[in-house]
Amino acid sequence: MSGERNDVSDWWTTSIIDMAPGQIRFRGNPIEDLIGTVSFPQMIWLMTRGDLPTPAQAKLLECALVAAVDHGPQAPSIAAARMAVTCGLSLNGAMASAVNMLDDVHGGAGEQAVELYHWIAASVREGTALEEASATMVDKWQAERTKFVPGFGHRFHKPEDPRAPRLLALVDEAAAQGTVGGEFAQIGRALQKLLNERKGKPVPMNIDGATAVIYAELGFAGPLARGLFCLSRSVGVIAHAWEQMNQGERNKGPTPPSYRWTYSGPNPIDPES
Amino acid sequence: MSGERNDVSDWWTTSIIDMAPGQIRFRGNPIEDLIGTVSFPQMIWLMTRGDLPTPAQAKLLECALVAAVDHGPQAPSIAAARMAVTCGLSLNGAMASAVNMLDDVHGGAGEQAVELYHWIAASVREGTALEEASATMVDKWQAERTKFVPGFGHRFHKPEDPRAPRLLALVDEAAAQGTVGGEFAQIGRALQKLLNERKGKPVPMNIDGATAVIYAELGFAGPLARGLFCLSRSVGVIAHAWEQMNQGERNKGPTPPSYRWTYSGPNPIDPES
Amino acid sequence: MSGERNDVSDWWTTSIIDMAPGQIRFRGNPIEDLIGTVSFPQMIWLMTRGDLPTPAQAKLLECALVAAVDHGPQAPSIAAARMAVTCGLSLNGAMASAVNMLDDVHGGAGEQAVELYHWIAASVREGTALEEASATMVDKWQAERTKFVPGFGHRFHKPEDPRAPRLLALVDEAAAQGTVGGEFAQIGRALQKLLNERKGKPVPMNIDGATAVIYAELGFAGPLARGLFCLSRSVGVIAHAWEQMNQGERNKGPTPPSYRWTYSGPNPIDPES
Amino acid sequence: MSGERNDVSDWWTTSIIDMAPGQIRFRGNPIEDLIGTVSFPQMIWLMTRGDLPTPAQAKLLECALVAAVDHGPQAPSIAAARMAVTCGLSLNGAMASAVNMLDDVHGGAGEQAVELYHWIAASVREGTALEEASATMVDKWQAERTKFVPGFGHRFHKPEDPRAPRLLALVDEAAAQGTVGGEFAQIGRALQKLLNERKGKPVPMNIDGATAVIYAELGFAGPLARGLFCLSRSVGVIAHAWEQMNQGERNKGPTPPSYRWTYSGPNPIDPES
Repeated sequence: MSGERNDVSDWWTTSIIDMAPGQIRFRGNPIEDLIGTVSFPQMIWLMTRGDLPTPAQAKLLECALVAAVDHGPQAPSIAAARMAVTCGLSLNGAMASAVNMLDDVHGGAGEQAVELYHWIAASVREGTALEEASATMVDKWQAERTKFVPGFGHRFHKPEDPRAPRLLALVDEAAAQGTVGGEFAQIGRALQKLLNERKGKPVPMNIDGATAVIYAELGFAGPLARGLFCLSRSVGVIAHAWEQMNQGERNKGPTPPSYRWTYSGPNPIDPES
Repeated sequence: MSGERNDVSDWWTTSIIDMAPGQIRFRGNPIEDLIGTVSFPQMIWLMTRGDLPTPAQAKLLECALVAAVDHGPQAPSIAAARMAVTCGLSLNGAMASAVNMLDDVHGGAGEQAVELYHWIAASVREGTALEEASATMVDKWQAERTKFVPGFGHRFHKPEDPRAPRLLALVDEAAAQGTVGGEFAQIGRALQKLLNERKGKPVPMNIDGATAVIYAELGFAGPLARGLFCLSRSVGVIAHAWEQMNQGERNKGPTPPSYRWTYSGPNPIDPES
Repeated sequence: MSGERNDVSDWWTTSIIDMAPGQIRFRGNPIEDLIGTVSFPQMIWLMTRGDLPTPAQAKLLECALVAAVDHGPQAPSIAAARMAVTCGLSLNGAMASAVNMLDDVHGGAGEQAVELYHWIAASVREGTALEEASATMVDKWQAERTKFVPGFGHRFHKPEDPRAPRLLALVDEAAAQGTVGGEFAQIGRALQKLLNERKGKPVPMNIDGATAVIYAELGFAGPLARGLFCLSRSVGVIAHAWEQMNQGERNKGPTPPSYRWTYSGPNPIDPES
Repeated sequence: MSGERNDVSDWWTTSIIDMAPGQIRFRGNPIEDLIGTVSFPQMIWLMTRGDLPTPAQAKLLECALVAAVDHGPQAPSIAAARMAVTCGLSLNGAMASAVNMLDDVHGGAGEQAVELYHWIAASVREGTALEEASATMVDKWQAERTKFVPGFGHRFHKPEDPRAPRLLALVDEAAAQGTVGGEFAQIGRALQKLLNERKGKPVPMNIDGATAVIYAELGFAGPLARGLFCLSRSVGVIAHAWEQMNQGERNKGPTPPSYRWTYSGPNPIDPES
């Protein structure tokens, strides 16, 4: 793939894919050796990380991908996808509309949780006790970033998000088998204990916090945790957009049309006029 | 989830997900029964179709998902994702930028191929010979839709796209085991033969044509074929956006800046001025 | 802007903009001659069409741009923009989310109306009476495209959309002054009469139908009518997204959280459990 | 617009638009009083700020909107728009693709410049000399945010961006007429002087820096400066997307296909194989 004008080719340099007519290699692996041989989670790992995971690693990644596919149409992302198809978009446009919304507030908690976990892990490696490291780093997070501790708290699932204990149990199993170290599961549990005590009530580990444990255990960088969350949630997006497509409707708004909105500005229309 | 104001709740009716505090069910299945039990491809099937596939069906779906993850940064979608992160977007925004571009021309061929295959299948079921049905339906497609026969032809991979024969071989295996009927693999091959003859040179079945065989064999509707292609390609998008993020750069344009563009309008700037 | 490697520069050929260090020309006009001299609507015309309009033409274009800025937060586009900022997106991301939804069904009626008007105009130019041409072309539209006649009908504004008569009156003024021909205003009114008669009740010309009259009178192609509608509506999008940003909220869903959605699938959660 | 179920209507409360059948009011103004009466820039101001500007204020705003419409197809946003239409998207999708890319790095400099100018203005109001305030606040910006001083520097336009002096001259005129105070033009010039001295060469005020002077003079908040930049640039986006649509092409990549990319990963394909 070289030539005289290397500057143009170099502008798009990548280590992910190589091609020649009739040949495709991903991270050095011929595509025909991968199809039918590796699982989709293994392929996801290969593409984003550069190496193939063991089956056990891929299995744990798969648990995180399965767990986060959907949380219903009240999530702005899913609502947007459903509205989008009624505006004339195809499934790709509906997916784009939804995934675009999975930004810092809606889809960024997993990425942030991986980062917070790593702060605590680094402190523990330097000799601080886990409990103290957790407290210190939560304080630091809230001082430097935001009062919202990523990965914990849910306005609906109380006292427990059903996904979190199941995912943590699977991390424990993987740790028992030597697939992962288990360090981040401990960190997650330490945070859970700390936050419950501080609030005086359950602050349940949510899907972002639980999948972040898995992503951190498996060595995924924070931004990839967000990317993989988006990939997982895209499954729900496709399902909802397709269901909406079959339900029909045109220009579906957020509420039934009869409700409209409350007007709070100057010179309102007199309903008697 | 009911109440007095059912019209508001009904506005967002779905058969995909049910929730209560501490409980989530997808298509009637508690989430904790799915995590760690079903594969990611099985979950994709469950969410989009409503039932769980057999492991053999899921395995064939997995082959299609693995095969389509990437085709390099010259694809406008991947280029857009890489440029997006240099503009300040996070991975979700990069994914949205890319998937939005997988519209009718760039990502719609799989959906269209499923539709064309079904036209041929319907004709065969009505008694027409496969060869004749293929020819007739290609003519109809070109008359009513576009001259581009979806799923065939590649400007780069000649004489063969390496993904197609591998995927068709896996469909054959699945057909031999009774997982699928094999009807659409026959249709794909009949189209291949027809187009080669008409063009007098290889018109290779491409990734859209090959995965459409699998999606049709497994009973996925055309729009879902596009959705699943977008899901698969999102893996490459994440990989490329993440690689670009690590390469750095700000406001990466399509070509090295020194090239700029050719101006073809009135009153050009005199380079001597 | 040339060089040895013209193929790379030619790949991005444009007649819109020329540049040299310290110099920018749009359609051949130095930027410093345009700033402070031409109005924003004149600039919009220059960029999209290549020539500068007369002040009177620009004034009529301006009316269309002013008229379509917003229709409230029940429109899926505006709702999406407001939800987007609560998910962490900046104003550009909110705008993108909204404009992406202005697709065929939500934002495409103006483009379609321009096309339908041109069908009728062509028929009239061939000698058919306006009334007959309108009836014939509406039939053709409904047979070949969709039952929805673009630019007419409103589920809320009955019996009249307040924007339409005002815009038509301004077209009449412009026609009286020789700025436009007035042909498309006649076509719009003929369609209005026809549809009212067919339905036996008012089918009010809406914002798409009225602005399409202006765009057609001024010679804008259909796709540009959609583009200009998106530009106009972007103003409302910015206003709403900014208002929402100031209202705060995180992950705003389509309805108050207490409503949730109606579940219509198998194995619902027993509310007593 | 009220009713028994105010919580649903209240969820979408806005002070921007009120409606009743046949009536639309923006910020309390009936739409029919605005169409044909106010200019597009006045309408933009009304929608985003809540009041109508004087003609002189609107005229200055118009200069900023005219100045920023385009900077050519090497900008990732414009390239994305052009690629998008070759992938099958309509103009709205092309606009969304482009505007989505105008994020912090690509389109956020104006917003940031407004903020930096306000830091300096606040310091001056507290009694610090302009020169010192500028130096201190640039240091603070680089320490707390990023080394990039927003609004200054250009990799192409040297020693001067032709848009900046023209826009500043128009601000001076407006200040002389009492339309604006002129404080932010002084700040902009102080920054220009400071940065030139520090770098020992021209660090030209760019389009973001110059329009930020106008937005700050007119009292627009930083995020609105970004929004208005996106609105202005959307004009160029429409022009380029429409030109590309007329040029044709399918799946236009960033470079001519013959260049492809440089592969830098393991196990490259042997070109001799």
